[in-house]
Order: sequence, then C-alpha cells, then structure tokens
Amino acid sequence: MPGLMSKPWKVQKIIFGFFIILLSFSLKAQEPEEIISSVFDEALTDFTAYNHLEYICKNTKGRLAGSEASLKAIEYTRQALIKAGADSVWLQKVPVPSWERGVEKCTVTSSISGKKNLAITALGLSTGTTNKGIISKVVEIDNFDELESSGWKNIEGKIVFFNRPVDNKLINSFSGYGGAVDQRINGASEAAKYGAVAVIVRSATQSLDDFPHTGVMHYEDGVDKIPAVAVSTNDAELLSRWLKTDPDLKLHLVSTCKNNPDSWSYNVIGEIYGNTKPDEYITVGGHLDAWDIAEGAHDDAGGCVQAIEMIRIYKKLGIKPKRTVRAVMFMNEEMSSTGGKTYAEEAKMKGEIHYAALESDRGVMSPRGFGFDAEGQKLEKLQALASYFRPYNIRDFDRGGGGSDISPLKALGTLQIGFMPETQRYFLYHHSANDTFEQVNIRELQLGSAAIASLIYLIDLFDL
Amino acid sequence: MPGLMSKPWKVQKIIFGFFIILLSFSLKAQEPEEIISSVFDEALTDFTAYNHLEYICKNTKGRLAGSEASLKAIEYTRQALIKAGADSVWLQKVPVPSWERGVEKCTVTSSISGKKNLAITALGLSTGTTNKGIISKVVEIDNFDELESSGWKNIEGKIVFFNRPVDNKLINSFSGYGGAVDQRINGASEAAKYGAVAVIVRSATQSLDDFPHTGVMHYEDGVDKIPAVAVSTNDAELLSRWLKTDPDLKLHLVSTCKNNPDSWSYNVIGEIYGNTKPDEYITVGGHLDAWDIAEGAHDDAGGCVQAIEMIRIYKKLGIKPKRTVRAVMFMNEEMSSTGGKTYAEEAKMKGEIHYAALESDRGVMSPRGFGFDAEGQKLEKLQALASYFRPYNIRDFDRGGGGSDISPLKALGTLQIGFMPETQRYFLYHHSANDTFEQVNIRELQLGSAAIASLIYLIDLFDL
Repeated sequence: MPGLMSKPWKVQKIIFGFFIILLSFSLKAQEPEEIISSVFDEALTDFTAYNHLEYICKNTKGRLAGSEASLKAIEYTRQALIKAGADSVWLQKVPVPSWERGVEKCTVTSSISGKKNLAITALGLSTGTTNKGIISKVVEIDNFDELESSGWKNIEGKIVFFNRPVDNKLINSFSGYGGAVDQRINGASEAAKYGAVAVIVRSATQSLDDFPHTGVMHYEDGVDKIPAVAVSTNDAELLSRWLKTDPDLKLHLVSTCKNNPDSWSYNVIGEIYGNTKPDEYITVGGHLDAWDIAEGAHDDAGGCVQAIEMIRIYKKLGIKPKRTVRAVMFMNEEMSSTGGKTYAEEAKMKGEIHYAALESDRGVMSPRGFGFDAEGQKLEKLQALASYFRPYNIRDFDRGGGGSDISPLKALGTLQIGFMPETQRYFLYHHSANDTFEQVNIRELQLGSAAIASLIYLIDLFDL
Repeated sequence: MPGLMSKPWKVQKIIFGFFIILLSFSLKAQEPEEIISSVFDEALTDFTAYNHLEYICKNTKGRLAGSEASLKAIEYTRQALIKAGADSVWLQKVPVPSWERGVEKCTVTSSISGKKNLAITALGLSTGTTNKGIISKVVEIDNFDELESSGWKNIEGKIVFFNRPVDNKLINSFSGYGGAVDQRINGASEAAKYGAVAVIVRSATQSLDDFPHTGVMHYEDGVDKIPAVAVSTNDAELLSRWLKTDPDLKLHLVSTCKNNPDSWSYNVIGEIYGNTKPDEYITVGGHLDAWDIAEGAHDDAGGCVQAIEMIRIYKKLGIKPKRTVRAVMFMNEEMSSTGGKTYAEEAKMKGEIHYAALESDRGVMSPRGFGFDAEGQKLEKLQALASYFRPYNIRDFDRGGGGSDISPLKALGTLQIGFMPETQRYFLYHHSANDTFEQVNIRELQLGSAAIASLIYLIDLFDL
C-alpha cells in the first residue's frame, strides 16, 4: 500500500513544487508598479480592516491604558495579527498610569442670564474635586501672559477659564491645534501659581459644537495640583457671553476623577520575518489606547488596523520583505507614551537594528502622502517614490512627520515616517465622544492601508 | 452757517480721499501671495457661505428645475449676490423639462425567502407605471452584452435588474461611477429592445447602504418607454441573493412618476464689472437645481455658494479684476443642462468674449486642486500657478476638468476649468437623500471658496 500511495503523492509534490516556483517567479518578475497595483486592489476589495475597526470601536470603546476595555482590545488585535498570517505575534509589557473619570457636572449660575449645565469632561491625569465640588467665580483668560498680568489679586480663589480659540486661519488643522493646546496641558499649573482653584479649558477644536474634548494635562513639580476640565466650544462661547454681562457669575464644578497607582499593560506586536535581512526591523504602528469617552476610531484604532492590514496584504499577495516588518499596536500613547518608550528601550537593550518606522496617528481620512524626518539626498530619494503613488493621487512627500510612539527610536538612528491623511475634519472627532466608527469612510481607510503597505514595500526594496 | 460747516467737511473729504488713495496704493503694492493669503483668511473666518448653504439645503430642499423650491432658491441666491456686493445681478430665462415623482413602492415576493419592500427611487425623466403597478418576474443582468445574449426569449415580459456594481478598484470615484452609470442612463431602452416591462437599476455608488440614488435617464427614439427605478445597493445585494435561490420570485413595482409639459426657469447671474477689460468674461458656477429627494448640499448648492463667496470676498477685500467676473447659478443641470446651454447661446448671440470658465460640481470636500482643459505651453503656465497654492496644501494642477454647465462655452474658445476636491466620499451622497447640509464640513467648504477665488484672481491678473 505505501508503494502504491507514494507515486501519486510524489506527483502531487512535484506539481505543487512546480506551482510554487512558477508563483515565485511570476512575483519576482513583477515590477514594483504591478506589486503596488495589487496592494491597492487587495486593500480596496477586502473588508477585514474595516471589520476590525468596527469591532475595536464598538466592543472596546474607551480603552484607556489599564482599563478592562484595553485588555479586550489587546486580545482582539493579537488574534487579528495571527489571522493576518504574521510569523510571530507577542505582547510586550508596558508600565502605564491608571486614571479614572468620576462624576462630572458643571453648572453656571448668573443673576442676569440664568442657570445652565455646561458640557465638560475632565482632562486626563487631572486631580478631582470633592464630591460636593467647587463653587467659585470665574475669570476668563486668553493666554499665560494675560494670566501673569492679571496676577494673584484677580485670580486667587477663582476658576480660571482659558478660552483662546484655535486659530482658524491656520491651514493645517494640526498647526491650529498646536497653537491652542498649551492651555489644556499647562493651564492648571500656570493658573495655580496665581491661586486659582480649578481651570476650565475651551476644547481644542476648529469646530463650534457640543462635544467637550479631553486630552492629557501635566502638573508642574512644586505647584498646587488643581482640577482641570475641558468645555465644549459652544458652551465656552456661552460662558464668555454670560461673563460679559455678569462678571460675578458662579460656576459649580464637580469632577471626581482620580489617579490610581500605576499598573501594567502591553504593546501588541506581530511581524513577518525578513527574507534576507531578518535582523533589521521596520516598524509600522498606531496606538491601541483611546480616551475613555471615545470609540477612538480615527484616534487611533484606524492606525492600528492599517498596520495589521499591511501584514495581511503581504501574506495574501506573497510579498516577502527583505527586512523583518512589524505591525505594532502601541499602548498608552494618550497619557504618557510608555508603549513607544518601552518598545525603543527593549530594541536598544537587544542591540537591534531599526531601519525605519512609520506611525499612523493623524486619523484615517483620505491619504495625502507621507512626511519624512530626513534631509538632503536621503530626503530626495524618499521624495522620488512619489512617482509610484501618482496613479493613486497620493502626492505629498514632504519633510517632517513621525509621531510620538516612534520618536524614541530616533536614538537608534531609525528613519521616522508619518502617514499624512487629509486633516480638515480630524479635530471634530479628536479626544471626544464624536470619534466614532461611523466617522470613518471605508475607502479612505482602505486607501491609507494600501499607501502604507506600498511605501514600506518600496523603502525595503530600494534600501532607502 | 453753510460757511462754518464747509471747512470741516472739506477737511473730512481730503482725509477720506487720502485714505482711499492709501488703501488702493497698499492694495496695488501687495504681491499676489499676499492677496491670496487675505483671500484665505477672509474665507476661513467668515460664515456667510456656510449660512447660505444651510438655508438653501434646509429651505429649498428638492429644488428640481421647475419646482416651487427651485423658485425659492433662485430668489434666495439672487438676494445673496446683491448682498455680496455684485455690481449687477439678474435672471436669465431657461427652458426646462418638468418631471414629477409619484407614489413609489417595490415589493419582492419569493416562495423561499419571503417578502420585502425594497428601497427604490424613480429615475429622473422616467415614465411611470399605472397606480396598480407592474407584477413580474425578474432577470438579473450585468451589462448590455449579457442582455443581448439573453435575448428576447429570456427578457420578454420581465423586469430587468441591472446589478453591475461600481468597480471599487478604480481610485477616482468619478471613474468608478462613470463605469457603472450606463445602466442607469440607457438601461431602460436597451432592455425594452428585448421586451422588458421595466428596469430596476443598482444605485451607482461605491457604498453598501440603504439609500437609493436617482439620476437622469434617457429614452432612445423609436424604442418603447418603460419605467425605470434605482434600488439601494443593500437591497440590490438582497434581490440578487434571493434570485439565486428562487429565479421565479416576483417584483411588484409601483412608480407613478410622470413627465409634464416643459416650462421655464432661470439661471441666476451676478457680476463684478471688469476694471480694464469689462467686455471679457470669466464665469464661475455651480448648478442650483437638485434632485427632488435631496437637499443637494454637495450636489451642488456647495458649488453655488462658493461662486457667490468669490464675489463677496473680492468686494470685501477690494480686489478689482481686469475682466468682468461672474458667479452663475445654472438651472437644470440634472435633467438636461439647459441652463448651461442657454448661457452659452446668449453669449454667442451677443458676440461676448468668454475668457475662462470654472465649474464646481464635484462636491465641496477638501480642495485638492484644479483640472484644465488645456495643452502645451498654455497648460504649463496654468500648472505653474500651483506654487501659489502650496501654502494651502492644494497641489493637483492637472489636465482635464471642466463640467457639463460650462462645456457649451467651449465653442466660444473659453478655457475650461474644473474645481477638484477630494472625491472618496462624494458618491455616498450623490443624488440621494443622504446629500444633506450636515455632510459638508465648514472648513472644507471655505478652503474651496478661497482656492477658487484665488485661482480666478491669478488667471485674470496674469492673462492666462
């Protein structure tokens, strides 16, 4: 019987071997343009990444580092990487802070305008009020210079209301955000220096709407820690109007959030072994954590599923990168970026060569291009890749880019790349309950995945 | 008393005159880059265009040519042009068809799968069914070749279901649409040639959702006119699945739409007189009509308010174009483009010089650039304008473009320009109840207005 069976098996094996040779030959014979075309075709006709995004948004909403939801997201993406066909998938232990939102309520009472609840949300890592909260007068402040000139006399015992809007004249919405976010990050400590009892900060968004936008804040050493909350832009406008007619109006602010002891969480990592240079690494990542009030679709489940999708596409199409290519779901970008730091520390400790790293953390709107932290000839070579992306109307190959999770790899000489999608709508969603699955367009997500997978393929192929 | 009063008055006059000279000098001394920067600043900090858009969407919804709503939109935009400061505003009489939707219902009944109402909408200019409708078997057809090979035997007496999806591999969503829309436009006549009693056509959109998308259809002369409706993509998928298990299932189709006698409507035109070449015209326009089921925000109230905004910005900033610049709200683009045809006919009749024309009818998503129907040196000069738009991340200066309302001006040698915004989301909205004010982002609209006003300023300034 073994004798009888062996022949057909051998024939099968020969046919199979021949088929494999044919397949690899046909792949090798393909021009980069053809490979990229296949990558876009695959991304644009497959629902896996979109389905992952829906699951993460709807089933692990509010997955702040250390939360139950974050553990569920870690396990889900670990399995997604295995299903995508990664050669190896593992978790990397990361120290994380542990912060918990409490009861939140903010009521403004004016003898002239009446009474209204404001739409607020505590800022991340903020200290809380007591259960009874704070009742106090309010002083509206535009910037830290104005705070200084107001001085202790005008600020002491009051709630400082930082109300400088995002400058809508700035074209890139990230520039607008960057020009206003100092109020959120440092406002509490700056105001506390003049005796403020709490701060309420206008949400850092170009939009006039009812969503309060949270985000991390920071206490300066040696300064009193006072509670900090964000208020929706519409209610910031209202509060400012009411203050004009009644400077003595009062706010009752309750925000019983608290900082718990630090704990542990994980980065999720999946990789395809490099074909000829397995000891050189290319990292593609987003962050898996999201603010507790958000589904975190654009920020940044989208970036995570695009990284997983790169692995799936390479495996599906038989693309074998020379270097080891990793998809990394970084943990705790939002509060203190310990995921990115831990990842780089371990790489340094092991003496790994990290060739390049790409971060997708600017939302998953339609792709416009990439930013490269490079100069001179190196930058020119990277910019020359733009020609491969013209058929896909992806044209912006500029200097700049990177991201907070891959920046610790700079110390290892790693090329930093930022994925650059269309930005105008991003801060409608950012750090708010408005950042939902429904705000992501499937084709825009797919085009971004294809763009990232294609760029990494080219950088590896041409040793850029 | 007059003697006493005259002196201060004269001083005031001298000061005022000096101020005017200073102002015009400072404007003349400005580089084009500075003018463009002012244009963007103005557009990005003003709500007029966005408010116009909201009014048109919410108060003149379904403004198909000939409808009451269209008359309201005509009067509103006429006044908006006056308020914008146009030197002259008038209406241009346009012949329009008159088509009216009736009762619509489509029920599928299968002995295996059960019974379901499908989300349908009559196609524009389609003939209707009787009140009782048509009950018939269905045959699914992918393309006109398949129709021919099926032949009279398989088609006669049945409803033809055209179900070829938009090819999602095509990057530009307009290419995808263009590859599928033949079913909607010519499907009824093609199917009638083989004895079909009606057609039901898969909506021409990349999205899988519950909105049926209408649009104009056309009957071939000498062929029976049979009713034509569109079905949502989700229900097209369902109908296709049900047909696989039960090829004998029946559709009950009611669509009592009808064509009324032709009537009259108007283009709305506002202009700024040219400073040195008032007898040369530059036209910027969108179409004011919208499908009866839609608010028509992206298609194309957005294009209209961008044209009005150009007038407002020029007047506000004191920009004086050499040529006469017009904002035109074309009527009846959707059914037979008689607004554009009439506009060009009158121009030809009067022997006017129409220097250039720009159409914004691809939605008002974030601006990517412009398409020019030009070649050689002319095209190169136009493309060189891209450098002025780099600070605004508007980079696509390509060959191609134009639009159906300005294309009749080609016969007068008019340069054709198409405004090119981001396209991926457009066909989610196009010709459906999903095309609402809420789908427009204020900054994306504003950036588009600024881009259009800036381009027209440069083309006029440099005589391109």
